[in-house]
Amino acid sequence: MPGQVNYEPLTPLTYLRRSAYVYPDKTAVVYNHRSFTYAQFNARVNRLADALQKEGIQKGEKVAFMCPNTPPMLEAHYGVPLAGAVLVSVNIRLSAREIAYILNHSDTKIVFVDTEFADVIEPILNELPNVKLIVNIDDGAAPKRLPGPDYEGFLASGSPEDIKIPVIDEMDNITINYTSGTTGLPKGVMYCHRNAYLNALGACVEHGINTKTVYLWTLPMFHCNGWCFTWAVTAAGGTHVCLRKVAPDEIFSVIEKQGVTMLCAAPVVLISMSNFPGAQDVKLQKPLRVVTGGAPPAPTVIKNMEVMGVEVVQVYGLTEVYGPHTICEWQDKWDSLPFEERAKIKARQGVAYITAAHVKVVDGQMKRVPHDGQTMGEIVMRGNNVMLGYYKQPEASEEAFRGGWFHSGDVAVTHPDGYIEIKDRSKDVIISGGENISSVEVENVIYQHPDVMEVAVIGVPDEKWGEVPKAFVVPKPGTNPTAESIINFCREHIARFKCPKHVEFGALPKTATGKIQKYVLRNDAWKGRDKQVN
Amino acid sequence: MPGQVNYEPLTPLTYLRRSAYVYPDKTAVVYNHRSFTYAQFNARVNRLADALQKEGIQKGEKVAFMCPNTPPMLEAHYGVPLAGAVLVSVNIRLSAREIAYILNHSDTKIVFVDTEFADVIEPILNELPNVKLIVNIDDGAAPKRLPGPDYEGFLASGSPEDIKIPVIDEMDNITINYTSGTTGLPKGVMYCHRNAYLNALGACVEHGINTKTVYLWTLPMFHCNGWCFTWAVTAAGGTHVCLRKVAPDEIFSVIEKQGVTMLCAAPVVLISMSNFPGAQDVKLQKPLRVVTGGAPPAPTVIKNMEVMGVEVVQVYGLTEVYGPHTICEWQDKWDSLPFEERAKIKARQGVAYITAAHVKVVDGQMKRVPHDGQTMGEIVMRGNNVMLGYYKQPEASEEAFRGGWFHSGDVAVTHPDGYIEIKDRSKDVIISGGENISSVEVENVIYQHPDVMEVAVIGVPDEKWGEVPKAFVVPKPGTNPTAESIINFCREHIARFKCPKHVEFGALPKTATGKIQKYVLRNDAWKGRDKQVN
Repeated sequence: MPGQVNYEPLTPLTYLRRSAYVYPDKTAVVYNHRSFTYAQFNARVNRLADALQKEGIQKGEKVAFMCPNTPPMLEAHYGVPLAGAVLVSVNIRLSAREIAYILNHSDTKIVFVDTEFADVIEPILNELPNVKLIVNIDDGAAPKRLPGPDYEGFLASGSPEDIKIPVIDEMDNITINYTSGTTGLPKGVMYCHRNAYLNALGACVEHGINTKTVYLWTLPMFHCNGWCFTWAVTAAGGTHVCLRKVAPDEIFSVIEKQGVTMLCAAPVVLISMSNFPGAQDVKLQKPLRVVTGGAPPAPTVIKNMEVMGVEVVQVYGLTEVYGPHTICEWQDKWDSLPFEERAKIKARQGVAYITAAHVKVVDGQMKRVPHDGQTMGEIVMRGNNVMLGYYKQPEASEEAFRGGWFHSGDVAVTHPDGYIEIKDRSKDVIISGGENISSVEVENVIYQHPDVMEVAVIGVPDEKWGEVPKAFVVPKPGTNPTAESIINFCREHIARFKCPKHVEFGALPKTATGKIQKYVLRNDAWKGRDKQVN
Repeated sequence: MPGQVNYEPLTPLTYLRRSAYVYPDKTAVVYNHRSFTYAQFNARVNRLADALQKEGIQKGEKVAFMCPNTPPMLEAHYGVPLAGAVLVSVNIRLSAREIAYILNHSDTKIVFVDTEFADVIEPILNELPNVKLIVNIDDGAAPKRLPGPDYEGFLASGSPEDIKIPVIDEMDNITINYTSGTTGLPKGVMYCHRNAYLNALGACVEHGINTKTVYLWTLPMFHCNGWCFTWAVTAAGGTHVCLRKVAPDEIFSVIEKQGVTMLCAAPVVLISMSNFPGAQDVKLQKPLRVVTGGAPPAPTVIKNMEVMGVEVVQVYGLTEVYGPHTICEWQDKWDSLPFEERAKIKARQGVAYITAAHVKVVDGQMKRVPHDGQTMGEIVMRGNNVMLGYYKQPEASEEAFRGGWFHSGDVAVTHPDGYIEIKDRSKDVIISGGENISSVEVENVIYQHPDVMEVAVIGVPDEKWGEVPKAFVVPKPGTNPTAESIINFCREHIARFKCPKHVEFGALPKTATGKIQKYVLRNDAWKGRDKQVN
C-alpha cells in the first residue's frame, strides 16, 4: 500500500522533514556554544545520508555510532535511516571486547567514532573484517584519531538537498540497540519505523512535548535511542540540548542557561543531582519535568527531587519495548494526598503508554494476577511498542515472545486501581525460609536511612533459611553508618524476616548504563555453591 | 500481521478502552445535569455494541445516527465500530429527501433517531427498504416517537462487559460521512481505523489535549466525526461536554460552569459569539482555546475573539481529509507582532498536521507554485489523513485522487515561509475583465466595516466586464448601512476593480453545517444566462 494517496508508511524521518519545513529558523540543537536551526539540522542529516549512499551503503546495511550525546549522535538517528541503512547505537561505556562483538555480530559496515573513544577502538581495528570505513567525530574531546575521514568533511561530501524518504515497508528495521544485559552476551534489539514513529508520538502526548519544549540530553541516546525522545522532541519542533558529560554541576548550569523544561534520567542520576551540594539553592526558571525509569526509584529520591521543585514522572520499560512502555499516569485526585503518599504512588510503574496498548502482570499460566497489590507475577507486553526481535537470534526472540507476549522478566503486582508496581527482577526475589522477599522493597527502606546514598540487596547463602538478605551500602560522603544502625532502621519499618542479616559498605558494581550488577555481588556470595541464582 | 506480538491494528477503539482502564472514576461525559465516568461511558459503549450484534448486525454493515451532540452520538463513535459495523453520521439539518437518499445509498440497516427529528424521519419511513430497525433516542427534546425501541432500553439489552475489538485490518472502514456539498447529491466519505487513530493522536499533539482538557461540543459530531475530536479527547482522558443547541448564551454559560478549555467551531459560530451582547463581560476562568475551520475566518472575527481573551487557532481541511489537515502552527517570533499582523497570520491555513504528512499548492501540471504569496494554485493532499474514497462511487474517487493526490478544489497561495493561505474555492474566483478576484479577499474587507455581521461575495453578469463582484450583506442588529458606504469602504482598502459594484442586504442561504451557499445566490443572479458558474 505504500505511496497510495491515503496510506503513507509511518517513519520518524517525516518528523524532521516537517519541523524543517515549519520551523526552519528555530533552534533545533544546542551544544556548548554551537547551535543549529531546524533547517541546518535537516541539511546536515541530508548530507550524512547522501554521503553514506555515496560511500556505497545499501538498503538494510548497518552503520554504527559510538558517540556521546553530541549533535552527530542525534543526526545519526535521521541520517542513517534516511540513507536506507540501520543505525547501531553502541554503548560508549563498553569495553573493547564487547564493542568488537557488537560491531561484528551486527555486520556493521561503517563506524563513526567520537575521538574520546578512539583509544578504546584502536586495539580492535584489525578484528572488524566487515567494517570498511571509520569516520572520526572530533569536537576536541581528545587528540587521538583513527585512520579515516573527519565527520565534518564526510558531511561536506554529501548534498544538503532533501532526498526521498526510502521507507516502503513501515515494519522495516530502523535501529538495533544491543542490550547491556546483566549476564551473557549482548543481544541486538531491532526497532522498526512504524513503532518508533508511534512511540515518539505517544511520548509527545504523555509528556506534553511541544514547540516550547527544551529537552536536555542527560539520558544516553544509545539507550533505546534515548527512549525515542530523539524522534519525539524533533516531531514537536522542540529544542535538543546536547551534553557530553552527565555531571550534576554541568546539568544544573545548563538547565539554568538554556531554560530546560524536560530531561530523562535513571534514578542514579537523580540521586547524584539531589545529593549535589548546590542542589538546595537551585532556582528553576521554568517548570522542569524529569522523566525517570530504568529501575524503580526509591520514594526518597522522588521526594528529594520534588523538594527542588521538579516534577518527577516515572516510566517503565526495557530495551525490547522501545524504552518506556508504561507511565505512572497522574490522577488529579492524588494532588491533595500527603507528600509521602504521593511519592509512594510515583514509584509505581503505572499503566500502558497511550500508544503501547497492552501490558499485564501474569502468573505462570499467562493469566492476569488479581488486582490486589499483593500477588506477584511477570510483566508481559504486546502491541506497537514491542521490538521486531533479536538480530540473528530467532530462538531467543521466540523464547522472549512465547505465548504471543513479550516477557519482561520483571516481577510486579497490580494494584486495585490497575497500576502495576515492580517488586523485582525474577532473579532478584529472595526466598528465605519459604517466604518471598522483594529485594527492592528492602532497598527502598534502606534508602530512607539518612546516611545512605546507594544500596543493593541480594540473597546470600544461609544454613538455616536457605538464603537471607544482605545489603551492600554506599554511604553518603562524610557519613560513617554502622551495619547495626542499618539493620535496626529496617526493623523499625519492615518485617524482621525481610531485614538484612548482613551489611557491607563500599562501591557497587554497575553496568555501562548505570544499572547495579547484582549478579556480580551474587557471584561472589555464591561462589562454589550448588545454587546459583542468576 | 494482526495479532502479532509487535503489531496491533491502529484503531481509536483502543483509546476508550485505555481511558476506561486508567481513569475509571473520572468524568468522561457531561450533558446538562447528567454525567458519565469513563467506566460508565465504556460500559454504555459495550452495551451498544453487544446490543447491535444481538440485533444481527454483521461486520461492515452500516448503522446510522441522526442525533445532535448528546451522549448517544458520542457513544455511537465507539459502540458502532466495536460491533464491527460502520457508523453513518447523518447531518441533522438535512431535509427528509436528503436523509432518505443517504440512508438508502449507504445501505443503512439500523437508524438511531433523536426524538427532535422524529418528525423529519416519519414521512420517509416507508421509503427505506434496507432499514430493519429504528431506535428512539429520547431525552425529552420532543414528544414524537417512531415505531421501535428506546435507546436506553436498547442499551439495557446488551452486556456491559468488554468485548474483543474486532479490527483486523486497520484500513477497514470505520465511518461514512456524507458531504453536505454545495451542489449535487451528497457523497459518502469513507474513513478507516488507522487514519482516524492517527488524526486523533495528531490532534492531541497539535492542540495539547490532555487529561485536564474540558472540551465543549459546539462543532457537530456529524461533521467529520467532530474533526476526529470524538476520538482525540477520549484518547487523552479529557472531558466531553455535550451540547444540544449551539447558541451563544448557552455556550458562554457552559464555558463558565464546566470550566471549558477548548472548543471547535466554524467562523459563523465565532461571529455569533463575538456579537453576543454579554460577550464584553465574559470572564474566562481557564485559558480557552478555540479551534476554527471550515471557512477562512475574517481577521476581524479572530480579532474580536482575542479581545475576549480566547486563543484562536485555525485549522483547515475538508470532509475528505478527516476534517483538519493543516494548522496555522504558531511561531514564537510572531508573539511580538502588532495585533493586526497577528490576526492576519492567524487567518492563514498554515502547514500540515504532524500526522498529515503532505499538502501543497500546485498548478495545472501538479507542480508546486512558487512560495511567493501571490501565485494561486489548487491545494492537494496525500497521506494518512486522506479518505479511503467515496462509498460506491469509484469514478468520483478516482477523479478526486487523480495524479495520486486528493484534490481539494480550494485555491490558495503559498507564502514565503511555506504557510498556505486560501484565496477561494475554484468556483468562487470571480473573473472580471480578465482579472482574477478572490471573493474571500473582498469579503474580508467588508467584514471590517463596523456595521457588517456577515457577508458573501459572488460574481454577477456584467455586459462590459463579463462579471463583477456583488456583495450580499447581513447588517449587525440595530445598524442600517447603505450600499454606498460598503462600496466606499472597500475602495479605501482594495483595488477598485475588486470592489463590489452591487450590494444587497438580507439573510444568507446556508447549508446545514452553516456554510454559506453561494451557488444559491449565483443561481438567482445567472438565471437564464449561458454561463453558469457552479
